[in-house]
Amino acid sequence: MKTQVAIIGAGPSGLLLGQLLHKAGIDNIILERQTPDYVLGRIRAGVLEQGMVELLHEAGVGERMVAEGLVHDGFELAIDGRLVHINLKELTDGKTVMVYGQTEVTRDLMAARQACGARTLYQAEHVQPHDMNTDRPYVTFEKDGERVRLDCDYIAGCDGFHGVSRQSIPAEVLTEFERVYPFGWLGILADTPPVHDELIYARHERGFALCSMRSPTRTRYYVQVAADERIEDWSDERFWSELKRRLPAEQADKLVTGPSIEKSIAPLRSFVVEPMQYGKLFLLGDAAHIVPPTGAKGLNLAASDVNTLYRILVKVYREGRTDLLTRYSEICLRRIWKAERFSWWMTGMLHQFEDNDAFTQRMLQTELDYYVGSEAGRKTIAENYVGLPYEVIE
Amino acid sequence: MKTQVAIIGAGPSGLLLGQLLHKAGIDNIILERQTPDYVLGRIRAGVLEQGMVELLHEAGVGERMVAEGLVHDGFELAIDGRLVHINLKELTDGKTVMVYGQTEVTRDLMAARQACGARTLYQAEHVQPHDMNTDRPYVTFEKDGERVRLDCDYIAGCDGFHGVSRQSIPAEVLTEFERVYPFGWLGILADTPPVHDELIYARHERGFALCSMRSPTRTRYYVQVAADERIEDWSDERFWSELKRRLPAEQADKLVTGPSIEKSIAPLRSFVVEPMQYGKLFLLGDAAHIVPPTGAKGLNLAASDVNTLYRILVKVYREGRTDLLTRYSEICLRRIWKAERFSWWMTGMLHQFEDNDAFTQRMLQTELDYYVGSEAGRKTIAENYVGLPYEVIE
Repeated sequence: MKTQVAIIGAGPSGLLLGQLLHKAGIDNIILERQTPDYVLGRIRAGVLEQGMVELLHEAGVGERMVAEGLVHDGFELAIDGRLVHINLKELTDGKTVMVYGQTEVTRDLMAARQACGARTLYQAEHVQPHDMNTDRPYVTFEKDGERVRLDCDYIAGCDGFHGVSRQSIPAEVLTEFERVYPFGWLGILADTPPVHDELIYARHERGFALCSMRSPTRTRYYVQVAADERIEDWSDERFWSELKRRLPAEQADKLVTGPSIEKSIAPLRSFVVEPMQYGKLFLLGDAAHIVPPTGAKGLNLAASDVNTLYRILVKVYREGRTDLLTRYSEICLRRIWKAERFSWWMTGMLHQFEDNDAFTQRMLQTELDYYVGSEAGRKTIAENYVGLPYEVIE
Repeated sequence: MKTQVAIIGAGPSGLLLGQLLHKAGIDNIILERQTPDYVLGRIRAGVLEQGMVELLHEAGVGERMVAEGLVHDGFELAIDGRLVHINLKELTDGKTVMVYGQTEVTRDLMAARQACGARTLYQAEHVQPHDMNTDRPYVTFEKDGERVRLDCDYIAGCDGFHGVSRQSIPAEVLTEFERVYPFGWLGILADTPPVHDELIYARHERGFALCSMRSPTRTRYYVQVAADERIEDWSDERFWSELKRRLPAEQADKLVTGPSIEKSIAPLRSFVVEPMQYGKLFLLGDAAHIVPPTGAKGLNLAASDVNTLYRILVKVYREGRTDLLTRYSEICLRRIWKAERFSWWMTGMLHQFEDNDAFTQRMLQTELDYYVGSEAGRKTIAENYVGLPYEVIE
């Protein structure tokens, strides 16, 4: 079996890269360990930066997003019981974000891929990249009990933090940067109307809370919990009660509760690996970096990696610009580190850290108060939240 | 002996408060443990915020400052060998800072006080406030071997971090916030022309450096050193050589060296006590809070405390607004915490911390890169550096 670009992983980044390459006439095959239903079942992010929205349009999959997604001009910070509005549109000269679930993005990309006839091999087991450091890289996998070899020019590792791609790079060429936070997010999905028409990020002495949504009838709410908290100990009632305590009185009163459709605890981690490439293998998204979800950057960072690799590969195949390939990691990392910083900063500002001394607690509290009280400060929050500009490939 | 306001400490904050009160017709006596020459011999800050400049004019001591001080429209950050200009004037709609040494401010205030006949008692020993929590507070001290009692309405504690004023407040009513940084600043004063027409704050892998000045012919330079460094181990030659290594090549080449007039190592500390008042005793400046010198906020914070207490006392004596007195601490602390944050932030961004893990180091590096690369980010730096607005007393 042969293709130009072998893509490992059929999550949103693999599918988006595949779709963009296909439209540019670059042949690609996606290998995915799981079934389509499994991929769609993962409940993840739901806030898309403007850059990602434009990239989805470029991939030809923006139609349903425009029809069903919710454009948000701002969000709210709840600090000490009062709401502070961050008006993204005003503070960034017109930029906004799109509330549209990762599941829906994935669904749209799957449908587009099926419609155009590009190949995705689901339930491809034991995927393994080989000879990435040579001119003839290939990927092996097992499909329906048969071992298959896929020859290719390049390999795109879109297989997440636990995937095989990063693990196939010799450890001695990689430098890892990591911070594991001493808490998690307990999240539920419910078919209830959102408590507010924008997202609310709440700092509270009992811990952080987030009121998010997927649609006008489906909500996604989170509360900060200890890292060792067990999901069995959290009935829906306990969750709703804890959430209410962390919201300003007006929102707590308005909160509509209901049975959870999904409920889970996610750990919070910051992680970056350098470099993000090894020979003909390129890492994208979670395969190379993780952000804590505060700031909604995870999926968006994956999209900006896709944007970079896609534009480089187009120049490689159309103009022979193979020199750009060596710069992939450096180009991606400039933007990634800034998004890592914003996610780390938002996490630090809004969560309770038991280990912080009294001085540090006051510094973080003052920092947030200063930033929301200063127009320049609000602009720094807004320009990061809508997404810093993509790097230009030339 | 009797007065309306007893002021403990004849440093710049005590003298400035005394001068403003005197002009407003409020009688005051300043008690100072040291001699005038000792007070003038302390080499301290040299960058005045616009608010402090205006307050000095209001006190009638701005003339020589305007003639001899240097108005700076901006400063430079040296990051990884390149200069990044922070244009204060452009970024803050016209605000600037004044380079004029604390020694000169003190000298001008001493001269004005002498000219107007207001009393300063130097070499007043064993100063002790009493009965601050009653309607008849008083201060005792020894002068020329005699014990003296000074009755007063109010006591202003302007006697610094180690002074008696804060120590006279029962420990159980105070909450202290503190951070001691694991390094110090080795500073020298020299009669050499400044290497640059603006200040340079340098981040370097060998440690922070600062190129400051007192006049067109007198410079003040600093390098970050370990907390346990001994001044005897630092010859002038070693200092100049270390400073040069931490500056961009162009500035290192231009640096004019010369014998030091003064050379000392200062520790770096953040400290705030809450509340800043106890009955009729009010703490101002270093008596209540310390900032690390990065950001040049120490003297300026003292001036903003003076501004607050002065305006409150004028309303008390003219309009009987004693209700304002209970709000002194709360009003001061709003601005103080923000200046503490900025000083802590600048210190964190620009110094090397041996204990930081690799992730934290990248975060701090990225944070500085982001802030200087973003106009909104530069505005947050500039508006803090020129000084946030004084609180309005009404």
